[in-house]
Amino acid sequence: MRPSGRKLDEMRVISIETGVTKHAEGSCLIRCGDTHVLCTATIEDKAPSFLKGTGLGWVTAEYGMLPRATNTRNRREAAAGKQSGRTQEIQRLIGRALRAGIDRVALGERQIVVDCDVIQADGGTRCASITGGWVALRLAVNKLLKTGAISSDPIVDHVAAVSCGIYAGQPVLDLDYAEDSEAGTDGNFILTGRGRLIEVQMSAEGATFSREEMGTLLDLSEAGVARLVEAQKAAI
Amino acid sequence: MRPSGRKLDEMRVISIETGVTKHAEGSCLIRCGDTHVLCTATIEDKAPSFLKGTGLGWVTAEYGMLPRATNTRNRREAAAGKQSGRTQEIQRLIGRALRAGIDRVALGERQIVVDCDVIQADGGTRCASITGGWVALRLAVNKLLKTGAISSDPIVDHVAAVSCGIYAGQPVLDLDYAEDSEAGTDGNFILTGRGRLIEVQMSAEGATFSREEMGTLLDLSEAGVARLVEAQKAAI
Amino acid sequence: MRPSGRKLDEMRVISIETGVTKHAEGSCLIRCGDTHVLCTATIEDKAPSFLKGTGLGWVTAEYGMLPRATNTRNRREAAAGKQSGRTQEIQRLIGRALRAGIDRVALGERQIVVDCDVIQADGGTRCASITGGWVALRLAVNKLLKTGAISSDPIVDHVAAVSCGIYAGQPVLDLDYAEDSEAGTDGNFILTGRGRLIEVQMSAEGATFSREEMGTLLDLSEAGVARLVEAQKAAI
Amino acid sequence: MRPSGRKLDEMRVISIETGVTKHAEGSCLIRCGDTHVLCTATIEDKAPSFLKGTGLGWVTAEYGMLPRATNTRNRREAAAGKQSGRTQEIQRLIGRALRAGIDRVALGERQIVVDCDVIQADGGTRCASITGGWVALRLAVNKLLKTGAISSDPIVDHVAAVSCGIYAGQPVLDLDYAEDSEAGTDGNFILTGRGRLIEVQMSAEGATFSREEMGTLLDLSEAGVARLVEAQKAAI
Amino acid sequence: MRPSGRKLDEMRVISIETGVTKHAEGSCLIRCGDTHVLCTATIEDKAPSFLKGTGLGWVTAEYGMLPRATNTRNRREAAAGKQSGRTQEIQRLIGRALRAGIDRVALGERQIVVDCDVIQADGGTRCASITGGWVALRLAVNKLLKTGAISSDPIVDHVAAVSCGIYAGQPVLDLDYAEDSEAGTDGNFILTGRGRLIEVQMSAEGATFSREEMGTLLDLSEAGVARLVEAQKAAI
Amino acid sequence: MRPSGRKLDEMRVISIETGVTKHAEGSCLIRCGDTHVLCTATIEDKAPSFLKGTGLGWVTAEYGMLPRATNTRNRREAAAGKQSGRTQEIQRLIGRALRAGIDRVALGERQIVVDCDVIQADGGTRCASITGGWVALRLAVNKLLKTGAISSDPIVDHVAAVSCGIYAGQPVLDLDYAEDSEAGTDGNFILTGRGRLIEVQMSAEGATFSREEMGTLLDLSEAGVARLVEAQKAAI
Repeated sequence: MRPSGRKLDEMRVISIETGVTKHAEGSCLIRCGDTHVLCTATIEDKAPSFLKGTGLGWVTAEYGMLPRATNTRNRREAAAGKQSGRTQEIQRLIGRALRAGIDRVALGERQIVVDCDVIQADGGTRCASITGGWVALRLAVNKLLKTGAISSDPIVDHVAAVSCGIYAGQPVLDLDYAEDSEAGTDGNFILTGRGRLIEVQMSAEGATFSREEMGTLLDLSEAGVARLVEAQKAAI
Repeated sequence: MRPSGRKLDEMRVISIETGVTKHAEGSCLIRCGDTHVLCTATIEDKAPSFLKGTGLGWVTAEYGMLPRATNTRNRREAAAGKQSGRTQEIQRLIGRALRAGIDRVALGERQIVVDCDVIQADGGTRCASITGGWVALRLAVNKLLKTGAISSDPIVDHVAAVSCGIYAGQPVLDLDYAEDSEAGTDGNFILTGRGRLIEVQMSAEGATFSREEMGTLLDLSEAGVARLVEAQKAAI
Repeated sequence: MRPSGRKLDEMRVISIETGVTKHAEGSCLIRCGDTHVLCTATIEDKAPSFLKGTGLGWVTAEYGMLPRATNTRNRREAAAGKQSGRTQEIQRLIGRALRAGIDRVALGERQIVVDCDVIQADGGTRCASITGGWVALRLAVNKLLKTGAISSDPIVDHVAAVSCGIYAGQPVLDLDYAEDSEAGTDGNFILTGRGRLIEVQMSAEGATFSREEMGTLLDLSEAGVARLVEAQKAAI
Repeated sequence: MRPSGRKLDEMRVISIETGVTKHAEGSCLIRCGDTHVLCTATIEDKAPSFLKGTGLGWVTAEYGMLPRATNTRNRREAAAGKQSGRTQEIQRLIGRALRAGIDRVALGERQIVVDCDVIQADGGTRCASITGGWVALRLAVNKLLKTGAISSDPIVDHVAAVSCGIYAGQPVLDLDYAEDSEAGTDGNFILTGRGRLIEVQMSAEGATFSREEMGTLLDLSEAGVARLVEAQKAAI
Repeated sequence: MRPSGRKLDEMRVISIETGVTKHAEGSCLIRCGDTHVLCTATIEDKAPSFLKGTGLGWVTAEYGMLPRATNTRNRREAAAGKQSGRTQEIQRLIGRALRAGIDRVALGERQIVVDCDVIQADGGTRCASITGGWVALRLAVNKLLKTGAISSDPIVDHVAAVSCGIYAGQPVLDLDYAEDSEAGTDGNFILTGRGRLIEVQMSAEGATFSREEMGTLLDLSEAGVARLVEAQKAAI
Repeated sequence: MRPSGRKLDEMRVISIETGVTKHAEGSCLIRCGDTHVLCTATIEDKAPSFLKGTGLGWVTAEYGMLPRATNTRNRREAAAGKQSGRTQEIQRLIGRALRAGIDRVALGERQIVVDCDVIQADGGTRCASITGGWVALRLAVNKLLKTGAISSDPIVDHVAAVSCGIYAGQPVLDLDYAEDSEAGTDGNFILTGRGRLIEVQMSAEGATFSREEMGTLLDLSEAGVARLVEAQKAAI
């Protein structure tokens, strides 16, 4: 029934390749099927000014998409002169998600910037960005631990995200673009390695959904994130 | 336990005053406690260009906050030269929510713009905007029906929204600013008059939450939206 | 002869309601007929940087109009990405006018920002903003005096403004939108409580006027401002 | 008493040189003392879109100042990314003034753009722009008449402007920068060749003025504009 | 003598991998040592408006750099709200270079947009963009030929570019970042497959160079481009 | 053969008038035929922040064109809200060129800003800006030497620029607009007074050129710059 022939609860093939750029403190290329995102983590010695003197660290994220990552070319945001509302929404989401897995006291007064750039898009780019962004963050933090810049590990748990939705009347896991553009209801679920919820965003465009469907989607997302966490573990 | 002395499932006092500006096709001033939002609906004869020739209508929303709606003055977005990511996120949310309650075929190829301007803020401004925005939309559609511009009612159900969160370890309904700024986990729930879900946005900043807590918050939101829908009915 | 049936020298009904928002140090909602402007005054501990170390204070103003304050919806300036020339012209005018009634030494090195937001427009919004803005400023300064932050009153006189113009060949006082959009010549007169002139802006679009007409308009404005000052006194 | 040694009602030396650029349909370099403004008029075949089909023409103006036209360098507005409020205010003023001297029916559905660029500034740049801009406009219209593009002269009268103010307690004519920066009260007066008023803008920064002073300044401006109109006549 | 140990006329290892994204009509990942650029070509049915009705086609380019492509993170241009002068200069250069190898009549009234996004930077990104951009363009044109959209090949020759400069007093070929940041004189040479010059940009920052040095650099560039053209041929 | 009737190696008439504005530390109006550029140099006590504490000075340039400097009016960049890619490219070029003639140690930690504003354009505006900009810079530096602010002359040589190109198959010197808009290949050559090269920018739009042609153009440019340097010497 799914355009890709996948089962309702079947995820796309996941691959996470680390160390893909020589400059960044942490980096990976995550592939969730045909969605490919390059994630880099940059350590900055200074925290944002609103944290000055607090001893607390910060993790933030930026998101971008290459103009021809999609089927038809999108206008380059740098040329348009601003980031779209969608881009800003996504990068705020990635940042919040990654911060939920961090002990900001242990991180110390510094900032880690996670850049997620979509090389090729086929649905689920914000989820892939979170899952891959966590790997880049993990690698950058490892560097801080190794050099002794920090003494205890500020990462408290894995963070990963998956999309779920109702496609052709059925709850499905890990929507690709063909499904995403047709689904009346879909959303993103961000969970920790231990299965705790960080963020739930279910949204119906021109449709509504029931409490029961909400429950099924939460079940699917738990299974999906467990798979992603395995892939994260394998990558590091 | 709540700063306001309210019970865990107690909402703030709601008031919806309609017809508050002489120019708009529909308008109301919604007060949820100390959060006051002026909502107006404007009917435009043309739909956005991406709908040209489809016969489908559109509902969109814009959101703003007066500089001194809050405890300390915020920079005016018009002076800053752009809408913040937060503003864009909110107005996209309001638009999606209101469209979920509309039959776009029955609306016909026109657009209704709902403006939500926060006069005074005390938490929950996006929820009040959705609840009040629906009333303004309803009044504008009534005008279209009355003049015969459209023949069947495009509004399929009420749409209203309420915030819920975990404050001091307890699930609470309808957070005010004092709670909102302290809650580790909070979110917005948009439902129809019949209790169907339109959008769920639960987010943990520096915390996580369980499936059980998610369930309790969904229960609270159902009760809260039912109250808001009553207030909408009373207002019209 | 006037669309509203008013006499040539008859002003619209004026009402000034104070204390309309709980956050601002001073606030009022001024209504001049169907023109309604919400004015708030915010006290900031720091003066602008060009005054650093001078001991002098500053009063500045910002002006905005809700998108549907007018008969047809205007594009939101925050969405357009800039304030129009008209908006900037008006807010510069309000700021200059209010500063003319202030002893900047007595105010001390701090700033008061007066925000004037038009809720509903029917002509004369800049004049209503000045008259109402002065009330918000007065209330904020009262707070400074009460707390002992300043010891002598920096407000040297009332400041109020009224529009006059030549409509259908006759000099008229306090133009509403129907007159304003037709008048070949119109302008704004800002005076103190003692009747001294602060600013005169007469402008002819596609017409010209004589010295005699200028004199009559100055007479009308003196009478009009006297009425507004009475309303200010009653409000405080 | 005046820094320049001029008498209270003495204007600076005026010179208007026409035909200073080979491309523009009309052009002049106007010098009012040390204030030098290059004015060009460009004829465009199309009127602005809001006039489409009305048969009416339009005259508009743009104003700029070279970065080092002043004593200390100003940031280039093109580099800053926007025109200041002051620039917009001035160019709107120039446009309104020039339109007051034009019969827009006789002009026909086309637009004339008058660019006023300040090469060197010493006070009174907006007045010089109006006086010189009118000359450029006159020359461009002459070209339209000569080629037969229009048959009757749309220019109904001269338009010229002069500043007046109260400097060191005395009403003075044609303020230079030294006076302008000290004057508590000053303004701009735009009149026609026949002495009719087009625009009066008197403004007090930190001071106020009386009806009598207003009268004296109007007298001075009439004399000043008469001199400028003579210079315009001599130039053409 | 060179930081990399290369000989004066030795180029870095070149690799060109084609077909790297599934959406673009033509794509490649070019690697010149540690400089990696992803190039995609997008075919658009419409030419830019200035070519409407001429029957001529257009090739244009856009350039970007991922924030952490470099040793220290650069601010994202989309977040900064504009493309830097450097970015605009580079993308104008790439576009001009590629157009020099195209018969715009044979291409027909359509546009090909070549996007060059630097994944990792180590000097010479604009040259790699031109060399790789030509491959993406070639592949996209092949698609047009294959589908019969055009009948004769509009590509008249290879286009490739290499940098040369004077490093530590010696003329060197294909500068990497370590050399580029130290070289007093360096530049970019764009040539065709037949060795004709398209563009020469030699620039001295804080130094000057002689006619003889210019000659040597031109010799080096001819040899370098010949190597790049071989790599292009091998890739297709 | 040339539209102007000039010989292939004949330059336009050059005139350089100094001291043309009373405010700038150095200024000139350079005329190369019908191309007229006003150049001013402003001395700023502070160097840019990236030089803080280095003891090194900086020279930078900004470039602008009056809207009607050209045959058809160009949109004012300040109104458009940004400088075009072309403008940025040119002003970066002027800055680099002038810095090549300066000893930044001798200049000391200060900045000189050279503004080049095109009053009338007929091709070659960037070359005229460099040649005239150098004169303004020279005059400003003279002022620093005269006041004793610096003790040794930081100007190491003249800097001047000329365009060359291939017009109607022939190499020509100093292209005017009629030639520039037709030439398949053209470029700018910046040299010192001693004939050393600073920058070479040859570019072919829809054509290519040979090594031999490159040589001829270099010869022409040497002769042309020698003439410009004579004019610079005469002007000072």
